[in-house]
Amino acid sequence: MVSVVVDLNADAGESYGAFTYGHDREVFPLVTSVNLACGFHGGSPSRIREAVALAKAHGVAVGAHPGFPDLVGFGRRDMALSPEEVYADVLYQLGALYAFVKAEGLSLHHVKPHGALYLKACRDRETARAIAEAVKAFDPGLPLVVLPGTVYEEEAVRAGLRAVREAFPERAYLKSGQLAPRSMPGSWITDPEEAARRALDMVLRGRVEALDGGEVEVQAETLCIHGDNPRAPEVARAVRRALEGAGVRIQAF
Amino acid sequence: MVSVVVDLNADAGESYGAFTYGHDREVFPLVTSVNLACGFHGGSPSRIREAVALAKAHGVAVGAHPGFPDLVGFGRRDMALSPEEVYADVLYQLGALYAFVKAEGLSLHHVKPHGALYLKACRDRETARAIAEAVKAFDPGLPLVVLPGTVYEEEAVRAGLRAVREAFPERAYLKSGQLAPRSMPGSWITDPEEAARRALDMVLRGRVEALDGGEVEVQAETLCIHGDNPRAPEVARAVRRALEGAGVRIQAF
Amino acid sequence: MVSVVVDLNADAGESYGAFTYGHDREVFPLVTSVNLACGFHGGSPSRIREAVALAKAHGVAVGAHPGFPDLVGFGRRDMALSPEEVYADVLYQLGALYAFVKAEGLSLHHVKPHGALYLKACRDRETARAIAEAVKAFDPGLPLVVLPGTVYEEEAVRAGLRAVREAFPERAYLKSGQLAPRSMPGSWITDPEEAARRALDMVLRGRVEALDGGEVEVQAETLCIHGDNPRAPEVARAVRRALEGAGVRIQAF
Amino acid sequence: MVSVVVDLNADAGESYGAFTYGHDREVFPLVTSVNLACGFHGGSPSRIREAVALAKAHGVAVGAHPGFPDLVGFGRRDMALSPEEVYADVLYQLGALYAFVKAEGLSLHHVKPHGALYLKACRDRETARAIAEAVKAFDPGLPLVVLPGTVYEEEAVRAGLRAVREAFPERAYLKSGQLAPRSMPGSWITDPEEAARRALDMVLRGRVEALDGGEVEVQAETLCIHGDNPRAPEVARAVRRALEGAGVRIQAF
Repeated sequence: MVSVVVDLNADAGESYGAFTYGHDREVFPLVTSVNLACGFHGGSPSRIREAVALAKAHGVAVGAHPGFPDLVGFGRRDMALSPEEVYADVLYQLGALYAFVKAEGLSLHHVKPHGALYLKACRDRETARAIAEAVKAFDPGLPLVVLPGTVYEEEAVRAGLRAVREAFPERAYLKSGQLAPRSMPGSWITDPEEAARRALDMVLRGRVEALDGGEVEVQAETLCIHGDNPRAPEVARAVRRALEGAGVRIQAF
Repeated sequence: MVSVVVDLNADAGESYGAFTYGHDREVFPLVTSVNLACGFHGGSPSRIREAVALAKAHGVAVGAHPGFPDLVGFGRRDMALSPEEVYADVLYQLGALYAFVKAEGLSLHHVKPHGALYLKACRDRETARAIAEAVKAFDPGLPLVVLPGTVYEEEAVRAGLRAVREAFPERAYLKSGQLAPRSMPGSWITDPEEAARRALDMVLRGRVEALDGGEVEVQAETLCIHGDNPRAPEVARAVRRALEGAGVRIQAF
Repeated sequence: MVSVVVDLNADAGESYGAFTYGHDREVFPLVTSVNLACGFHGGSPSRIREAVALAKAHGVAVGAHPGFPDLVGFGRRDMALSPEEVYADVLYQLGALYAFVKAEGLSLHHVKPHGALYLKACRDRETARAIAEAVKAFDPGLPLVVLPGTVYEEEAVRAGLRAVREAFPERAYLKSGQLAPRSMPGSWITDPEEAARRALDMVLRGRVEALDGGEVEVQAETLCIHGDNPRAPEVARAVRRALEGAGVRIQAF
Repeated sequence: MVSVVVDLNADAGESYGAFTYGHDREVFPLVTSVNLACGFHGGSPSRIREAVALAKAHGVAVGAHPGFPDLVGFGRRDMALSPEEVYADVLYQLGALYAFVKAEGLSLHHVKPHGALYLKACRDRETARAIAEAVKAFDPGLPLVVLPGTVYEEEAVRAGLRAVREAFPERAYLKSGQLAPRSMPGSWITDPEEAARRALDMVLRGRVEALDGGEVEVQAETLCIHGDNPRAPEVARAVRRALEGAGVRIQAF
């Protein structure tokens, strides 16, 4: 019997000083890896430290979640950074997070860019390459979480990094394979049970219903749970239950 | 014949984006170690990268220069951070700088806190301990540059770190061993030749003239040259010339 | 029959970009004035705009709540700013908030410093004077909310400003008249009904029980409700009910 | 005899804390208006205060120079802000600068966006409208400095603001009327005498040589001198000399 395995990841550690963001305490027990903010779009040193300790307590793998230098915009606004700026910004953030991981006796597990930086990497080869080169310069053994079928995936592979494919049970896909833009009606799956069904389709059949008709191929080693959704714990529980019920093993890649 | 050895260090890498600070290009060829800003009081990712590359080109040892999170105040204003906040802020900055050092194939050579954080460490044991613990958690082999005779030196030693004693040829000392406050007339030595004479006294005799009369004992493995002084290159050249003329070997500790 | 009048104020508008802080929507309907963050310890432009619109919708008077330039510390950590720096920082923040108030067709109603800046003004005359001078330079008709019996109150008066005395029903007082330090057991009144009783004592009798025995005189034109307390709406409702039940009129000063 | 009049403007007040930027002391005596940074891309409160005092001492008209919230990128990188974010960011910055102008007993003279925000306004109608609406909401009497022939100029006019046309003697133009991209060879005029000749052409003939052949119409009420150019004072002097030699009166619009 072949065992199917998948990782559940969530963005986390995004609180900043007195400003609490997301639902880390509820979400960490339910996922197998977290992508921790590194100070640019969220994540102050003390709150990063807290998140790393929480990850350690729950045995969750810790990845870096570097973003654009835009705290007030939460890294969600595209910025015209040069590839050199992207490289330096990512390197800086990797190191900053690494220090906390090392101080806790853990290892950095992976890298996944945040928000507008992730989206830009998917469509802009130079940005993707700058991210991949920064990861490689820091530690060529660090996997990069990618959206399959993008120049971002290509550049991760070209840099010799392990590219870990990610899918989004809470996001609608177009038949082109792209994520439906957030502005499109139906682009967001809010019902935990539906997200769970989609997660099952993605993991067991490698396909999911497309928003614009038919099905789309979706390959994933890791599924992203949106940790800033107030219903994140509910979604994570539903997805876990569905996967485990189907005999899927949930563990960090 | 016993050879006397001393290091010349300078604070550097403090430029931030389009804002250039200090005289890195003139100073790096003249010193043997630099303390590079890590982004909090100065030092943006791209400018840090540039400074690390410059240090590499000149064979200068690279240390971290963490400061208070006060860019607008250049880390020169005391801040009431808890020891936990100091620990997290220092750890974050060490990691951030480390990433650039590693990407260049170099090693992090030492740590020296900046400005108000350095001064606070000298008089506040909890702050000193938090800094020492952060360095130890990151890498117990990293030396910490200290002002001799302070609680800061004590805490570096207590944490099991190598405490590297520093002296300031351009700063006046009181016979108590303390640096004369900057507000005191004569607290600042601006003549490069006088700074050079004082450097010689410090290194060869372990003593220097005190501002309030008599002499004061000053032991130093490293001498600090103030890189943001417009005459920094002149001072560094005069100090080097005097030391080398007296047969002192100048090299990183 | 003499009518007794008091204002209820709350710190608000402290959200920053995607980071929501406090309970503005619940608190605004219950108070008569708000002190809005101006961007330094909290309050991004878009969130300030939102808070000003909310204040307008509820007919609440809008004051400025300038703080130290310490977003990550939420302005709660003392900083060694020079009086000139305090002056410039306060002036900057007053203007920034004023723009939103003016754009909504409102007037700026008062100024109340935030957190560590407020506390420093209470004990450091130069800081207090710098704040008062900044307010005066911007608009000498702007009242300054003060803690009675402090150098801060003295400097407000000396600058020719109207000093509006504030009391804290949720904070314990010492018989010296000072607020009990937050680290002291019992320094924080968490029961809404007790806060309400204390509010009544303050307004009707001008006295309140002291934490270290006996009673202390407390004069107040405005009572502060802590808007970041999760029970803030409950406290505000209890205080209002008690005051209105006793025939006190609640309105902005 | 008809007298020809033109304003000379320079971006200024962009220093930030200990970081000095540009050449304000040399440039202010040579221009008739300045556009002062408001804290987002440059300009800390104390340095803004200093710049406003310098402007007052030289009788130079003070305008606001709001930029994107990108200090590390000096406001030169495009950012995907929503129109609502642009509106709030501009309003915030106008108020902040206004406070210093008011405290010095001066009036705010005009508004000119900075860097990437200016460029975006020239090509994106929604951004242009958001800027114009913010200025109008703050003070409908404030002129907006614009690049002629752009949607930015159209939106300034549509909002009922006075649109003051600007030209750049140090920048090459294309025959389309656009500024030549900075990446294009010859896009930057570095010779002060050539800049002066072009300034004369612009003011007296309303035309200037185009980089891609022929001439282009350029109408200007104000000429921009780039204050961060090390040769800025030289350029400003050459331009003044040429204009005054031709009988042109140089004064703020």
